[in-house]
Amino acid sequence: MNETEISTLGEFGLIKELTKNFSLKHKSSVMGVGDDCAILDYSGKDTETLVTTDLLLEGIHFDLTYVPLRHLGYKACVVNFSDVYAMNGVPRQITVSVGISKRFTIEHIAELYDGIRLACEEYGVDLVGGDTSASVTGLIISITCIGEGVKGKTVKRSGARDTDLLCVSGDLGAAYMGLQLLEREREAGQGVEDFQPDFAGKEYIIERQLKPEARRDVIAEIAQLDIHPTSMMDVSDGLSSELLHICQSSGVGCRVYEDRIPIDFQTAMMAEELNMNLVTAAMNGGEDYELLFTVPLAQSERIQQISGIRLLGHVTDERLGMAMITRDGNSEITLKAQGFIMEK
Amino acid sequence: MNETEISTLGEFGLIKELTKNFSLKHKSSVMGVGDDCAILDYSGKDTETLVTTDLLLEGIHFDLTYVPLRHLGYKACVVNFSDVYAMNGVPRQITVSVGISKRFTIEHIAELYDGIRLACEEYGVDLVGGDTSASVTGLIISITCIGEGVKGKTVKRSGARDTDLLCVSGDLGAAYMGLQLLEREREAGQGVEDFQPDFAGKEYIIERQLKPEARRDVIAEIAQLDIHPTSMMDVSDGLSSELLHICQSSGVGCRVYEDRIPIDFQTAMMAEELNMNLVTAAMNGGEDYELLFTVPLAQSERIQQISGIRLLGHVTDERLGMAMITRDGNSEITLKAQGFIMEK
Repeated sequence: MNETEISTLGEFGLIKELTKNFSLKHKSSVMGVGDDCAILDYSGKDTETLVTTDLLLEGIHFDLTYVPLRHLGYKACVVNFSDVYAMNGVPRQITVSVGISKRFTIEHIAELYDGIRLACEEYGVDLVGGDTSASVTGLIISITCIGEGVKGKTVKRSGARDTDLLCVSGDLGAAYMGLQLLEREREAGQGVEDFQPDFAGKEYIIERQLKPEARRDVIAEIAQLDIHPTSMMDVSDGLSSELLHICQSSGVGCRVYEDRIPIDFQTAMMAEELNMNLVTAAMNGGEDYELLFTVPLAQSERIQQISGIRLLGHVTDERLGMAMITRDGNSEITLKAQGFIMEK
Repeated sequence: MNETEISTLGEFGLIKELTKNFSLKHKSSVMGVGDDCAILDYSGKDTETLVTTDLLLEGIHFDLTYVPLRHLGYKACVVNFSDVYAMNGVPRQITVSVGISKRFTIEHIAELYDGIRLACEEYGVDLVGGDTSASVTGLIISITCIGEGVKGKTVKRSGARDTDLLCVSGDLGAAYMGLQLLEREREAGQGVEDFQPDFAGKEYIIERQLKPEARRDVIAEIAQLDIHPTSMMDVSDGLSSELLHICQSSGVGCRVYEDRIPIDFQTAMMAEELNMNLVTAAMNGGEDYELLFTVPLAQSERIQQISGIRLLGHVTDERLGMAMITRDGNSEITLKAQGFIMEK
């Protein structure tokens, strides 16, 4: 048997490799692997069922030295809800499975579930099942979310067309810079008794990392304004990576303007303090859970009625590839996605 | 904060504790935590959606020194399908999430997915999504299965009534004795070069452990004979534990006859060889994935038309408790469930 390291394929290559021999057999399986959610049709009527799942592992996705368990529970839910909104759907139910090592007490796990309950209440979602198990090391959280979409209104990654406008909600890079700050303070605190981390003036980026929200409000506004995105996804792995997904799925290219990328003041300040490239952080940081979507050019005016939506650029013919136009307008940087987190 | 060890509650106590403050809000959430599957109603018509999820962890649920990855993939699917059949439903889709540590290659994970594909083909189920991630240690598999039931025919744990007959398919304890044999051979092989485990004459119990099947055939037969179980579940944690679930959910007691418990010859031989109590193995071993169900007394003749279904005993009034009548007919042993696997 050959021995190929998993990192050679990357996460998306691995999924492609593993699922290449699977085909869909049921008429209720409308769409399988390859978008924010799978689409199932159980109603035979005007709605369809959306399914998404996320696996969160201690030491890979979170560090409990600075992530409170309540926040972790909240975030673990929100990242799944975000995938359902990214299909223009509404999350309805979740199942939560947890693997728990011996260092956790019932009170610890109850805190995790407090956060899960808060997220469920906030977003109107029901916890309907799950599994609990001992684990050898660390905490494991696996959440599956089931949502509801309206047939014909569910938005995939694959519908972007040449000349469509590229839009994004909120701002980017803040969660990533929040993580950098949390890591810095964790290191500063090692071995120091009664260490108090210094987050003054950086509350926004900390909150973006520890307690992200899913953009249900944006979904409500686009519905109200009768806007029909041609493609959509949430920004979980970073803008570059998501643009690549939309362009590949839709068979198009894109142009993004560097000076249009929305960045919060605290994000910029933190990047300067840490001497990091701000645009790189915004393009590749990830965990923003903002919505990236495309709309036909004709809906340009309507889109601009929603506050906090930024026009990033536009969709092009596939042959033009994916590029970012630099701030001075003189050069184009080809966009590439960052890889799969195989190691911390 | 208090510090209560999780083992003090047990798995089912823990789930109860963690989910006590959650309530169902959506009309599409018909039933939540507490059965083999959750029941959702997305059709508004004559079908309902069933959801179940399982978390499998290396070092807790499986040992790769004797479990081939292909078998593991197959079994991980089948145990979920079994939960859907146990509701009298049909599994339709699964999502598969895997956490993979550095010692695994792409070829290893491809073997796991070969087993998953085989199970999907065998049972007519579509893989529609999932997540892949690095893990710090070991292999993690989280599967969620979505199935379809017919309204009014979905069978819960809670419908057993006094005088109903208690039935079980197949035989019990074989998977557990297979595990004992695999463990014995693993120990015997430690440090021995070119060690060949000896499974001669024990193929059935090995297969029951490594490649269990879900009893889709039983579900088909009860439908054909127009039998309506009043309660049903699959035997995953052991007969004692499942009887307890049915009796508690239904508010009834039961009498099980020791001499009616179906046990295969190889299971008995292995128990003798290892000097273990055979009835204990059959009652508490688990991983049988047989169907335990109750039917009204009036369906007694119909049930006996299905080969391989054993009448174990009957349901009683709750005040009579749960007990096993010993082989000599002279004494009753009160039934209790075994605990949560917190350590291996």
